[in-house]
This record gives sequence, structure tokens and C-alpha cells, in this order.
Amino acid sequence: MTTAKRDTYTPETLLSVAVQVFNERGYDGTSMEHLSKAAGISKSSIYHHVAGKEELLRRAVSRALDGLFAILDEEHARVGPAADRLEHVVRRMVEVLITELPYVTLLLRVRGNTGTERWALERRRDFDHRVADLLKAAAAEGDIRGDVEVRLATRLVFGMVNSIVEWYRPDSRGASEREVSEAVVRLVFSGLRAH
Amino acid sequence: MTTAKRDTYTPETLLSVAVQVFNERGYDGTSMEHLSKAAGISKSSIYHHVAGKEELLRRAVSRALDGLFAILDEEHARVGPAADRLEHVVRRMVEVLITELPYVTLLLRVRGNTGTERWALERRRDFDHRVADLLKAAAAEGDIRGDVEVRLATRLVFGMVNSIVEWYRPDSRGASEREVSEAVVRLVFSGLRAH
Repeated sequence: MTTAKRDTYTPETLLSVAVQVFNERGYDGTSMEHLSKAAGISKSSIYHHVAGKEELLRRAVSRALDGLFAILDEEHARVGPAADRLEHVVRRMVEVLITELPYVTLLLRVRGNTGTERWALERRRDFDHRVADLLKAAAAEGDIRGDVEVRLATRLVFGMVNSIVEWYRPDSRGASEREVSEAVVRLVFSGLRAH
Repeated sequence: MTTAKRDTYTPETLLSVAVQVFNERGYDGTSMEHLSKAAGISKSSIYHHVAGKEELLRRAVSRALDGLFAILDEEHARVGPAADRLEHVVRRMVEVLITELPYVTLLLRVRGNTGTERWALERRRDFDHRVADLLKAAAAEGDIRGDVEVRLATRLVFGMVNSIVEWYRPDSRGASEREVSEAVVRLVFSGLRAH
């Protein structure tokens, strides 16, 4: 049942409702009916803003991907020893993940059933490769240990960073964005052991 | 449609079929019909072995949990400086995760909709706390850095370890179980930077 709420959505605010529903029900399990109920406006009102749910998915994962790729263009990601650039990228990845939490969460859950999902997976892989290349460069410069294979190290670092979407809640009284990014950088680069 | 396959299952072999189906379709999305089709035996044959799908879930997650808890009883997890015991536990967690890959995968995906799922989540939390206690003890002994909060560090380490279920495939030509556990221990305890 659709309530009589007036459609005051912009594409941006409608997107935030859609992302929440996608994350709760899964993209595959979400119908235009679900979106219409969650937004409180009719399906035709939604179609006034977007062509369909795949467009909403594309906009949502684009927001996450644009945030991640923008990191690579930052000065500290482009200039200096590769290990320092890598450290900057890891820190900023955590920050973007937390700032864009619902969007990155959705991106990480994409399966690959539609063209948009496959495109998103492809872009994620591109990003992973860019980070792996930095790790490789840092190893070549002798600043990163040589006894952990680059692809494996990349996977494990992404595993740690991406796991944040499973427990981080912005309203929690737990760690702040800054504490989390600092903790990740410390663990990833220097490890748990006291020196 | 159920094929006429003779029921030669033991509770153990039936379990491995069930776990595969649970991991593919999700526990909620799996019916006795799905299990019957995947096993190639009738539903009543399945009921000959188990009371229902919740018993299969309980057996499956028990196998993962028993494997994890058994680590804590090993000598190297009980004797010595806490940091060394922690290192042993992290290494063995990776090994158990890989040895019992489908069972741990299922455990990590449990949501909490049924009594069995809530019980499994509770046991997972217990295990996490036991590991967090080790970390705390190691910090108190001065062997673990004091500038990363224990709960946060525990979450991040579990994040890295648990992420392995997302990409590790036993038939892959990638890293072996030993290489993965060694890489995790190196990264978690000493980090990426060359010393």
C-alpha cells in the first residue's frame, strides 16, 4: 500500500532510500513495489526520477566507486615513495568506506547477475589492481616485506578494510572514523606486536 | 523431481550436501525440497537421517565451532606468553577455516532468525571474546602495541581472517593453506612494512 506522501524527492534523496532497501533485502530481492513502499511515493513517481531499479543500483555503486577512485588522484597517492602512497590509499579507503557506508556496503554485496552488477565488479577489480600495483611498487622499492605474495597481501588487506561494513555503525558509541582508519593503518603496516 | 538414487547417505555425507546448498541458496532460502533434489533422495529418506533442516544447520555450524574452540585447548594456545598463544590461535584459525571451508562459510553467514542461528551467533561471540581476552593479556604483558583498542583490533583481525572464505578455493592454483596462514600471521603481527 502506497501512502499519499507528496513526491518531494530529488534523485539524490531517492537514492539513499533505495540503497537502504537494497542493503536490507538484497538487490535481487527488491522490487519497484518495495522501493515505492519504502519511499512512500507511487511507482510512477519513482519512474519520474529514474528508468528503474537498475539505474538506482548504477547510481549507488557509482557513488561508492567514484569515492574510491578519487583517492588515487589525490596528491599523496601520486607523489612519493610507493609505501607512503599505499599507506595514504589504505587510510583514505577506510575513510571513504565509512563516509559512504551504505553505498560501499552495496558495492561489496554486488553479485554479477545484471549488466550493471558485472560492470561494478569489473570496476572493483580495476581498483584492487591499482592497489596491488602500489604494493608491488613498494616491494620493489624495498619498503614492503618480500615474503608475502602481493596478490595474497592485497586480498588480506582488502579483507580487513572491507570487513568494516559488517560492524561499523555511525551512531554507535564505538570507535570514530579517525580511530578506525588509524587502527587499520597501524595494523596493516606495522602489525600487532610491540616494537 | 527426485531421482531414484538409493539412499546410501550417512548423516556425515548428507551434511556435506546440505552445507553446499545452504551456502548457495542461503539457509532461509533452502527448503527440504531443495535438499532432496540436491541429494537425489526423497524427503522421507532425509527425515530418516535428521529431524529437519534446522538439525542439519546445527550439525554443520557445530562442526565449524567445534573446530575453532578445539584450537583454544591446544597446548600452544594454553602455555607461554599471551602474544605467542595469540599467534598460535590466529594461525590455527586460518587452518581450520580452510580445512572446514564450507562449514565456516555457513557459520559466518548465519543471521539469527532461528534458535539454532542465535545459538551459533552466541557461540561465535564467545569465541571472539576468548581471542579478545588473549589480545588483552598480550597487551598487558607489553608484547602487543597499546595504541590500538583491543575490541577494534580483534574485529579487524577477524575481518582479515574471515575474509578468506570469500576467495579461497581448495582447487585453485593459488596459495596453499600453509602460505595463507603464514601470510596472515606475518601481516597481523608484523605488518607490511619491511623492517
